[in-house]
Amino acid sequence: MKKYQIEQINHLQEKINRMDPIDIAEHFDNLTAYEIALRIKLLNKDLLADTFAELSKDKKMEIIEILSDEDTHELIKELDENELVDTLQELPANMVKKIMQHFVTEDRRPVINQLLGYPEESVGSVMTVNFLAAKDHLSIQAIYDLVFQSDLDANKLEQIWITDGSLRLLGFIYLADLIRYPQAQVSDLIKSLTRTVLATDDQEVVAKLARKYDLSEIPVVDSENRLVGTVPVEWAIDILADEYHEDFGNIHGINDAEEINYLKQSDFTIAKSRITWLIICLITASVTGFIIQRYEVTLATNVALAMYIPMLMDSGGNAGSQSSTTIIRALYLGELQGVSFMKVVLKELRIGFIVGLALVAVNMVRILILDSVDFQVNLVVSITLLMTVMLSKVIGGILPLIADKLKIDPTVMAGPLITTIVDTASLMVYFEVASRLLNI
Amino acid sequence: MKKYQIEQINHLQEKINRMDPIDIAEHFDNLTAYEIALRIKLLNKDLLADTFAELSKDKKMEIIEILSDEDTHELIKELDENELVDTLQELPANMVKKIMQHFVTEDRRPVINQLLGYPEESVGSVMTVNFLAAKDHLSIQAIYDLVFQSDLDANKLEQIWITDGSLRLLGFIYLADLIRYPQAQVSDLIKSLTRTVLATDDQEVVAKLARKYDLSEIPVVDSENRLVGTVPVEWAIDILADEYHEDFGNIHGINDAEEINYLKQSDFTIAKSRITWLIICLITASVTGFIIQRYEVTLATNVALAMYIPMLMDSGGNAGSQSSTTIIRALYLGELQGVSFMKVVLKELRIGFIVGLALVAVNMVRILILDSVDFQVNLVVSITLLMTVMLSKVIGGILPLIADKLKIDPTVMAGPLITTIVDTASLMVYFEVASRLLNI
Repeated sequence: MKKYQIEQINHLQEKINRMDPIDIAEHFDNLTAYEIALRIKLLNKDLLADTFAELSKDKKMEIIEILSDEDTHELIKELDENELVDTLQELPANMVKKIMQHFVTEDRRPVINQLLGYPEESVGSVMTVNFLAAKDHLSIQAIYDLVFQSDLDANKLEQIWITDGSLRLLGFIYLADLIRYPQAQVSDLIKSLTRTVLATDDQEVVAKLARKYDLSEIPVVDSENRLVGTVPVEWAIDILADEYHEDFGNIHGINDAEEINYLKQSDFTIAKSRITWLIICLITASVTGFIIQRYEVTLATNVALAMYIPMLMDSGGNAGSQSSTTIIRALYLGELQGVSFMKVVLKELRIGFIVGLALVAVNMVRILILDSVDFQVNLVVSITLLMTVMLSKVIGGILPLIADKLKIDPTVMAGPLITTIVDTASLMVYFEVASRLLNI
Repeated sequence: MKKYQIEQINHLQEKINRMDPIDIAEHFDNLTAYEIALRIKLLNKDLLADTFAELSKDKKMEIIEILSDEDTHELIKELDENELVDTLQELPANMVKKIMQHFVTEDRRPVINQLLGYPEESVGSVMTVNFLAAKDHLSIQAIYDLVFQSDLDANKLEQIWITDGSLRLLGFIYLADLIRYPQAQVSDLIKSLTRTVLATDDQEVVAKLARKYDLSEIPVVDSENRLVGTVPVEWAIDILADEYHEDFGNIHGINDAEEINYLKQSDFTIAKSRITWLIICLITASVTGFIIQRYEVTLATNVALAMYIPMLMDSGGNAGSQSSTTIIRALYLGELQGVSFMKVVLKELRIGFIVGLALVAVNMVRILILDSVDFQVNLVVSITLLMTVMLSKVIGGILPLIADKLKIDPTVMAGPLITTIVDTASLMVYFEVASRLLNI
């Protein structure tokens, strides 16, 4: 190897070892197997492990194929429990078996198996088991010594968890206080816990807690209140973001998971993830067809009525989605705990009345100026508009509440169901009012 | 005072001093001024300050009225810079003036004034200035002593920031490493920085960084790369949540800020926040009226065509909102950097073609079985459906890209504009196809 090349490689080594594992992982996406192999050799072991944990499933498998048994062993050793479990959950069964048998040391297997047992999207599946706990009878000096001897990552040591003799969680002490108050007692320094979560709770609980309380670590306990793990808020923020994207996806009918990496995902996969929802909407929308068919005579006698169908439907749909968005948000923030349906219905009715009147005023003027239709048609449209907006507000407000009561994610129900119900209702009102007022 | 009462009060004192400030603040919402006054006396000073910072604007003003000058002085002293600035931004000008003159000590005024100067929603307005920085020429022992003497809150001391002689930020050292490696040099322990943000950046930048990289503190620098503050991830999660709610609100036409506290906000305020968007939608929707009017003859000759207007519009709207949601998400994650419009257009066209064909198949069968209309009408509807879905996909895909290019928040453009354009386009296609195929 020429001197020039060695210098180049030294330079590369220096550079990539200063990068963030997430950036290295992104970088790997665009490299050939050979280029990746070279970089794996150059990366510090702990950085390699962190980078590996951030890679896509395919890249992970590619890298495991490249690595010698010895290197694989080293890599698996450097992965912390959480990273290892995430990896194992992605890999095919035969690879998992091989890794567990050959590369996971015997002392780690019980905890790995336990973590693998938590259901997907549970707190247990996202927590870390790397934390430092100390019994409450210890002296501050003894706890300080525990930190001194600990080989945990430094960012896992900000808080030292305090338990009683039966390992039940009592609170925590900040590392900084250990340094500043060496003469104190545990009871002087201990901070009580605002909230704990169960390993079997939905991960969403962690995200909500982290959002509401300014916690930097959320302690995870078992049913006996023994500490089994923690979720750092750095991870809770990812959970929150995922939950939000899931909500967006639910409301707008996309399967979020399959639309990740928009450009790389095949057209067919994306199309497949979108079709189901559209077909459901299409079929439910055919109800509106039947209503129009039922009033075909009314419509034929006064074709001008057709002009306002889109406007009425859009106004209803928009008014309804405003309400459902607000209610979903209020549910999420816990503002509606113990509040009766009726209270929301009445509030939305009142809001709908105010909003509806404003819209009717604007619309009446618009029709008078721009459209050459009978005043009676204007009146029919106005009455329908007011009623549609009020109805939509109530429907949009109450559907998420029903979903919540039925323990269904309100966002799943928000999109298509509201549109269909609102469309149907507004068309029925429209033609009913029309056939009475226009004497058809 | 009877012994019984004293015991009661002691019990209350013990209880509330173990609560989280956020829970106490919520609790205060439902108490009378007298009850609050009592609790203020019982709360530890630092807990009172943290609680105060969490209260609503009205409660804050109420409490400042209750407190004696001495107690106000004490309270203001306990508020950290960030909490104080947040409070001052909420209070009326005369109160701010009074507090700044009488209760903020002279040494704090410059930093408070500086923080007050950052624009709303900038990083500077959300960062904390309570951090510990050390110069890189210091020994580990000297830095340890800095921690020992620091009177910062313990949770602000996890990372000690390292700067050069000119105060430019170099990296940080974990507190735990100071304890574990007392003999090391700064250069052995220093962690390099993945990312820094500018105090003038939009706060969204912090939320995105915190999400992408597992950072527990995001350092904020000035244009000379000098450390001016930090944003803990506990706060970044709040920013992320706020940004998401703003996005939801934009897409569904609600002014999020005015719909906070749904039940407490007056009907009129909520109605006002919803009306503008609905009026815009109403007016743009009238375009569809003109189109229907233009084809009134076509429609009068074949009233059955009206049956499919709602279904076609809904399908178009839904297909479009799927695409816009996906594209907004991809923009947010930075997946589309440097990608040409044409690539997205072509991808959405292909997806739209696949999805459209599937919908047409389902719909043709549905019409054949359920509706007694001519096959020619079925054909018109089918052709329109395919074209509408493809068009909607492209429009839904490209509008957020245009918004992004124009530096407008794509979510603002997502809702009403897409609906109107898609509705207009699908109606035009519908009637154009109908008048040709049905020879009207």
